[in-house]
Amino acid sequence: MDTLEAILTRTSVRAFTDDPVTDDLVDTLLKAMIAAPSGGNKQPWRIFVVRNLDIKRQLARGAGDQEFVAEAPVVFVVCRVPDESGQRYGSRGRNLYSIQDTAAMTQNLLLAAHAIGLGGCWVGAFKEEEIATAINTPASVIPVAIIPIGKPANPRNVRGRKSLDQVVHFIS
Amino acid sequence: MDTLEAILTRTSVRAFTDDPVTDDLVDTLLKAMIAAPSGGNKQPWRIFVVRNLDIKRQLARGAGDQEFVAEAPVVFVVCRVPDESGQRYGSRGRNLYSIQDTAAMTQNLLLAAHAIGLGGCWVGAFKEEEIATAINTPASVIPVAIIPIGKPANPRNVRGRKSLDQVVHFIS
Repeated sequence: MDTLEAILTRTSVRAFTDDPVTDDLVDTLLKAMIAAPSGGNKQPWRIFVVRNLDIKRQLARGAGDQEFVAEAPVVFVVCRVPDESGQRYGSRGRNLYSIQDTAAMTQNLLLAAHAIGLGGCWVGAFKEEEIATAINTPASVIPVAIIPIGKPANPRNVRGRKSLDQVVHFIS
Repeated sequence: MDTLEAILTRTSVRAFTDDPVTDDLVDTLLKAMIAAPSGGNKQPWRIFVVRNLDIKRQLARGAGDQEFVAEAPVVFVVCRVPDESGQRYGSRGRNLYSIQDTAAMTQNLLLAAHAIGLGGCWVGAFKEEEIATAINTPASVIPVAIIPIGKPANPRNVRGRKSLDQVVHFIS
């Protein structure tokens, strides 16, 4: 799929068919994810690829009972590792870059999934401790996004956006 | 350009030709930017499109004398508006989602630029107050990324990444 088309037609997908997401497709998505830029190329991230149903249910519960999380064939949990950016960039690395870098990674995942006929949803509302417990991460590895991925069960329209006039300023 | 190819071949570009970036191309980039997802579709962002040389020089100075910022035909400054996410999501919206949403927007910009033969660099190291002064934003609008955009002056190789083994965990 063309890049601009992928960017403009991506939607949040919360209902999935039973079609599997193969390991090969997961590998394609992972390679797209780690191609994201990061401050100083520090790559302050970890990715958990969850197929285990019990763990997927724990993720759904930790995200306020968003059941569709457990219904996806595969769920990605993106975590930031603040110290890996902070060692070079101090508090700006820990509190800004590590969030930005993992968000760029998450956007790569959503765009790559859409481009190969899959879909997903960026879930940000969850209790970090419950998710960290579910995937068994230490305190230095902080979950920042849960992204269930699968084949979309039904087409969805792109949601409206504020107009460019509302958010863009030109300094010419 | 194919989406996966764009994701995998994007590099940081810090040297630009004198070729202009037309208003039409800027419009294409802006539409790609605002297609980014945001928590609750709150779109807590502002975009400044800077062509004015004096302002570009102020941006370069505020970013620790990164002169290439002033040498790009056009410079985008992406800002977050924490309160627009915080009104619904409280501190998580202000301190996490508003950063993630604007990072997804910035990644869309970099991918879209690359896909149409342009290039850019995500500049995160700068003094927020100096940048805010240069583009004249109130305290509620916080600059989070400066992205100079232009035609790449020379081809660049993709930088190395940690191996998937180092950053991925499978829970099957």
